[in-house]
Amino acid sequence: MTHPLRLGIAGLGTVGTGLVKLVQTNADLIAARAGRPVEIVAVCARSRTRNRGVDISAYAWEDDPVALARRDDVDVVVELMGGENGPAKALTEAAIDAGKDVVSANKALLALYGQALAEAAEAKGVALRFEAAVAGGIPVIKSLMEGLAGNRITRIKGVMNGTCNYILTRMEDAGLPYDTVFEEANQLGFLEADPTLDVGGIDAAHKLALLAAIGFGVQPNFDAIELGGIEKISIEDIRAAADLGLRIKLLGVAQMTGRGLEQSMTPCLVPSDSPLGQLKGGTNMVVIEGDAVEQIVLRGPGAGEGPTASAVMGDVIDIARGLRLPVFGQPANSLAQAVAARATASKPFYLRMGLIDKPGALAKVAEALGLAGVSINRMRQYGHADTRAPVLVITHKTTRDAIEHAVALSLKTGVVVGEPVALAIEED
Amino acid sequence: MTHPLRLGIAGLGTVGTGLVKLVQTNADLIAARAGRPVEIVAVCARSRTRNRGVDISAYAWEDDPVALARRDDVDVVVELMGGENGPAKALTEAAIDAGKDVVSANKALLALYGQALAEAAEAKGVALRFEAAVAGGIPVIKSLMEGLAGNRITRIKGVMNGTCNYILTRMEDAGLPYDTVFEEANQLGFLEADPTLDVGGIDAAHKLALLAAIGFGVQPNFDAIELGGIEKISIEDIRAAADLGLRIKLLGVAQMTGRGLEQSMTPCLVPSDSPLGQLKGGTNMVVIEGDAVEQIVLRGPGAGEGPTASAVMGDVIDIARGLRLPVFGQPANSLAQAVAARATASKPFYLRMGLIDKPGALAKVAEALGLAGVSINRMRQYGHADTRAPVLVITHKTTRDAIEHAVALSLKTGVVVGEPVALAIEED
Repeated sequence: MTHPLRLGIAGLGTVGTGLVKLVQTNADLIAARAGRPVEIVAVCARSRTRNRGVDISAYAWEDDPVALARRDDVDVVVELMGGENGPAKALTEAAIDAGKDVVSANKALLALYGQALAEAAEAKGVALRFEAAVAGGIPVIKSLMEGLAGNRITRIKGVMNGTCNYILTRMEDAGLPYDTVFEEANQLGFLEADPTLDVGGIDAAHKLALLAAIGFGVQPNFDAIELGGIEKISIEDIRAAADLGLRIKLLGVAQMTGRGLEQSMTPCLVPSDSPLGQLKGGTNMVVIEGDAVEQIVLRGPGAGEGPTASAVMGDVIDIARGLRLPVFGQPANSLAQAVAARATASKPFYLRMGLIDKPGALAKVAEALGLAGVSINRMRQYGHADTRAPVLVITHKTTRDAIEHAVALSLKTGVVVGEPVALAIEED
Repeated sequence: MTHPLRLGIAGLGTVGTGLVKLVQTNADLIAARAGRPVEIVAVCARSRTRNRGVDISAYAWEDDPVALARRDDVDVVVELMGGENGPAKALTEAAIDAGKDVVSANKALLALYGQALAEAAEAKGVALRFEAAVAGGIPVIKSLMEGLAGNRITRIKGVMNGTCNYILTRMEDAGLPYDTVFEEANQLGFLEADPTLDVGGIDAAHKLALLAAIGFGVQPNFDAIELGGIEKISIEDIRAAADLGLRIKLLGVAQMTGRGLEQSMTPCLVPSDSPLGQLKGGTNMVVIEGDAVEQIVLRGPGAGEGPTASAVMGDVIDIARGLRLPVFGQPANSLAQAVAARATASKPFYLRMGLIDKPGALAKVAEALGLAGVSINRMRQYGHADTRAPVLVITHKTTRDAIEHAVALSLKTGVVVGEPVALAIEED
């Protein structure tokens, strides 16, 4: 098998450009490892003339992604355009239909349409690989789908959106409020065109849906994920957490409980000195737990030209080497439904409320928590300059339902000012 | 391909027993992921009757490993006996010769005879996989050989012997001397029958030789590794390091320099707050750096029944799925020679010496360092009760040659008492 593997690349943004550079720079090394040369034969992007710092003159140009997907001289279609619908979807479907292997970095497309695409790819006998869609350069999909394939996976946790982690880290380090750091991140070009994808947790939840599908043998189901963004995290919360030896992270958790698979992507508190707690800036981390392996922690750059191109290239080399796997690690038609399970896993919670500064206010809230069956582990009331007394509660292990009930009862007492903040604490 | 994949397991110690349990417990899940059932058909171990807590009565028994390797009903021979020579080597050679795929956890065998075994396996067209030989449950070989295959690897670093890391961590936490903790580890059963394999750095160096072969496209060459054990690390060194914000780790480093590939497995100092510095007890960590991916950090249990069985099972499932790769990621006959390169990489060093307590002693040592071209960054002299004044030097970046020259010149001054300790500092 020494004939070249021929790539058609759709999308020449940061990742596409990085892939072109990698194919050009490491051609000899890639050929030695793949057992055959890997070549680019055709590309497709919005602008043909933009200066990208790489020479693409040797490659055929296509204006239409679907035409690229159908080219006879293309073996593998690499989809780096992004977008959950539109041209990326049309291209991917056309490529599968034309019997081409596909490598994709498109988390949104796969999280939303992955099941149908997997069924189509498996029916056609083509590969559909997406290492670059989750956690940038970290080979997390390969580790989970292949390296840990002997394990019954029990939990997957992770920080998978570098922008949110940058914002939270920067708020703590510089003592700045959310809005200021959000604007900073915007100026630095860290945010998606629609920033809700980042700060609303959507992008990270797309990634979690893909990992959960592989780890737990379910159809990827974005809608089954309990979703919460970081927009409501205040500098007060960050300081209070630090005071307790905790840090706030936008944390994805997929875990098998007695009532089925629970998936959430929400701001959580983790110990400051844990691997997750120490994660700074745009770095990603995924923690995988299985019945045999215990716990594996994978850490690396979550985005960027080089790291993402590295992940794409890993998939391309797999295909060149002849690796053929079901898209999510077992046949798509054998995947179970992932239903939206209300979180029943029992965890400690962090609860911050502002109380009116009157005698008995604290007692009323404590009573409300008790009525909801929420037991208090630690409580702190902070000094304050205005009429609002900030109160912090760390509960014993309880459920999100109980916490929401406790918050509702607290609000009914009439002593709570503003909106309470309730965050789960992921201790281990 | 729905016929079962049939395993013959040689060795039923901790790992072998763990593998039997895993095959039995997760049979359905493994079949779904592998696309076919994985079955054990025959086993071989020293004692047939020992109670291992698993039922092996359904499997054929072989007294002779070579006979196991040649059984017609075995597709994959799993070598979990250990030992760099003798039965493990005979079994592996016989299995390859009989056209069987082999999965091995034997780092010593592969580090010493890997090149010949790889050539034999590739000539026969059989797989020889060894994820479990390096860093226990961490899928580091898969990550390096497959996930990061598009990268020119620039450096691999890691803590890969849990026993050494346990000893060093325990010395620091409990303030105990080396000999006491060594004896503790021995009592706990953490040490190999020949403890030099652990504390002499040999076991970890075997692992580094395998990673270097894959990452840098060289023949595994244990003899090319600069080797140093932890036996000479004193509680004084551990305290002095802590004082400087550093921790001592038995650290493997393989890096490409202008003069070729340098490999070392020696006690080094790392920042206490770095991922490597924070690694406690028996956990392993491997850091991989490549031109595209930047830096990936992998962390997990370095040994134990479940984690090691998980790694073995990952290889078995790869074989069941039809994955076929050259043993070290590119054809064995294309691997370069790894020569024993004298370390030229420039690093800061930690130097601890005892000086006679007389005026001018410190000046003489400082002069000796200067003559050797070693520039001092920080120097501390500690208070002392006896006649020996402990002096600590942190140098600016220099080479190991220069440091050894400086030590030799220092010894010639006649003011140094006892043996100086010189350790490289790995800062990033």
